[in-house]
Amino acid sequence: MTRYSEFAPSQRIIMTPGPVEAEPRVLRALSYPILGQFDPEFTDLMNDTMSMLRELFQTRNHWAFPIDGTSRSGIEAMLASIIEPADKVLIPIFGRFGYLLQEICERYGAEVVTMEKPWGTVFDQEEIAAVIRIEQPAIVAIVHGETSTGRIQPLNQLGAVCRENGALLVVDAVATIGGVAVETDAWMLDAVIGGTQKCLSIPSGMAPITYNERVESKIAKRKRIERGLRQPGEILTEESILKPIASNYLDLSQLQDYWGPARLNHHTEMTSMLYALREGVRIVLQEGLDARFQRHKLHEQALVAGIQAMGLTLYGESECKLPVVTCVQIPPETDGESVRSMLLGTFGIEIASSFGPLKGQIWRVGTMGYSCRQTNVLHFLGAFEAVLIRHGLRIPPGRSVQAALNCYETPVSLGVETL
Amino acid sequence: MTRYSEFAPSQRIIMTPGPVEAEPRVLRALSYPILGQFDPEFTDLMNDTMSMLRELFQTRNHWAFPIDGTSRSGIEAMLASIIEPADKVLIPIFGRFGYLLQEICERYGAEVVTMEKPWGTVFDQEEIAAVIRIEQPAIVAIVHGETSTGRIQPLNQLGAVCRENGALLVVDAVATIGGVAVETDAWMLDAVIGGTQKCLSIPSGMAPITYNERVESKIAKRKRIERGLRQPGEILTEESILKPIASNYLDLSQLQDYWGPARLNHHTEMTSMLYALREGVRIVLQEGLDARFQRHKLHEQALVAGIQAMGLTLYGESECKLPVVTCVQIPPETDGESVRSMLLGTFGIEIASSFGPLKGQIWRVGTMGYSCRQTNVLHFLGAFEAVLIRHGLRIPPGRSVQAALNCYETPVSLGVETL
Repeated sequence: MTRYSEFAPSQRIIMTPGPVEAEPRVLRALSYPILGQFDPEFTDLMNDTMSMLRELFQTRNHWAFPIDGTSRSGIEAMLASIIEPADKVLIPIFGRFGYLLQEICERYGAEVVTMEKPWGTVFDQEEIAAVIRIEQPAIVAIVHGETSTGRIQPLNQLGAVCRENGALLVVDAVATIGGVAVETDAWMLDAVIGGTQKCLSIPSGMAPITYNERVESKIAKRKRIERGLRQPGEILTEESILKPIASNYLDLSQLQDYWGPARLNHHTEMTSMLYALREGVRIVLQEGLDARFQRHKLHEQALVAGIQAMGLTLYGESECKLPVVTCVQIPPETDGESVRSMLLGTFGIEIASSFGPLKGQIWRVGTMGYSCRQTNVLHFLGAFEAVLIRHGLRIPPGRSVQAALNCYETPVSLGVETL
Repeated sequence: MTRYSEFAPSQRIIMTPGPVEAEPRVLRALSYPILGQFDPEFTDLMNDTMSMLRELFQTRNHWAFPIDGTSRSGIEAMLASIIEPADKVLIPIFGRFGYLLQEICERYGAEVVTMEKPWGTVFDQEEIAAVIRIEQPAIVAIVHGETSTGRIQPLNQLGAVCRENGALLVVDAVATIGGVAVETDAWMLDAVIGGTQKCLSIPSGMAPITYNERVESKIAKRKRIERGLRQPGEILTEESILKPIASNYLDLSQLQDYWGPARLNHHTEMTSMLYALREGVRIVLQEGLDARFQRHKLHEQALVAGIQAMGLTLYGESECKLPVVTCVQIPPETDGESVRSMLLGTFGIEIASSFGPLKGQIWRVGTMGYSCRQTNVLHFLGAFEAVLIRHGLRIPPGRSVQAALNCYETPVSLGVETL
């Protein structure tokens, strides 16, 4: 039977906000042979990975491990495990992924309070703090890097406000982890969810998370060992009966027992994806977090210089631009999808469009992880210029790549701010 | 920084009920470069995979796609999407994974009715049918291959009974898919969940599922497009407001829009794992389902002959033995964990222990997928004999491997029954 031929994907240059190109060493790790989930070599690997994730998240939290699913499984695991019915959750929204937080919190029975900013901007932290003081939420959930609009929300002052007001601060750092500083402990973030397929350059499939003792103690009350593993006579807490965690797969109290010394069987850990996660995070730590953040800023600078040299306009407020995603306004009369399609079909380069109100309005160009490198930026700019000219735009030929080359020869100061 | 060294797992012979050794071609597919999730090459791959999964599940159902998580994510997605609060769910239990179904159904607000059989046996289908007629459940959820006890539950008559009584039949075929016949349409199963890391020999990380129009129509009523993707003015159904699907990540109504022509963005599909799934299922279909089931029976036969030649006793009723898992009673006075540990440490061979009441009572030996081959069976028997002798057991030396070799030279008839 030969109806289904062997699969052989084309090589792509991926300049989207994810999934981006995976590190070749990560791809190699994926092809290593399987270990059993309770093989000592594998449980060592699990422990090793936890320790690396703590460095990645810049935390001393004990709990740092991956959820076995794509990024939103990590967000949902975190929220499902801490939201008790009727808990008030404050969600400041400034793009599509804020709505996702709202969606998930509502499904888990929270009383959701939202505040919104026009897309393309972010909040002044003091605006959020004022609402926290009035609303007294149990949880504040917020996006750090909003890829739908290419904005980054400063968070360094929110943790203290949440602590003063008895709220837990949950941060979606899916787009920023490994590309922009995410200082879990210094910013007093209670829970952080990262993504693999963006700045970590690991294929989609795991969601590394971390959380502190404030979160752990809320989860512990609702803990429930599953039937079939429970010992005879084992007693359930009142909270676990009255306010059980709704999901079994995403129940952090059970996952802790699997990632902790008890090693209680839950799911079968994703063997190959864990190899990939360990290798990808190892590479990030080997490069060094600060060096990595600087690299992302350097290539962003060259990309922006090249785009502006074409006479194109960036979208959104510049002070809160997310360094790893650059949003470009689609010029009037230009068919944005046709441009994307020619870039992919003719040059093998992928960039993204956007969602909802920004659909058809902007292109989004990612410079994330392994995809964030000089050759990619230069190839993209050259190809983009050619495609735009082919679409009838008057672009001054050759200037874009020259502007980027100038940048690489003489980069302007690249201080890594801690937002 | 070189604190974390490169990871390099040992080669293992994995004779557990999963995860088992992955097919080398599947491991190779994992290392292919990334495609974007809306790259036409990737959406073609998604469609291709759906079509292959239909063949694997022996169904004409439109919906056949993977859930992005380990096997239990597929079970939970299915149950979470069809259980409406207070729905009565009947769960016949004959081992640990029946309790998992109960656990999940309770968390999603079902009124659960269970019936239990002693471990090591299964139900007569008529026993279940009688309870269905009395209880009139909305859903019947049952395990096909129970790896905790090594038993297989016949299912060929249950579908018709469920249909007559207005119940949906949901089957956990995680352990059997690709190793033993699972005839979705012929048996009138409404929803089936498979696993990757067992008889398919793909690493853990995805859960292929299929379901028919009866299931789809129940899900459709509760459908809800998520905020941030919803068009202005889009109206939610009453059911989606009153009985929303509790999980966003595991919401099949949303996943359908991602796997269907709308291609509505939900999660970022696990690129590399999907490559692996496609390649793994391709290899299964290339071998042919019947040939594959026969191969599993052949190696089971040789394994059983070898184990019995050592004078060891099999666990459980023989008429319902799961062909892909062989349970062996641990002889009195023998430290089962010490045997497993020496097998792994000295011979690089992994077998499993069991759970709950069977902990310390039995060893479980898997013959699944790529791990199910002559060299593995022979190496295991030789090593097992040596380890047991080293543990003081009086095993007649050499007979075990000879018994298996006899089997391979003259296999007894291997009719593939459709259970």
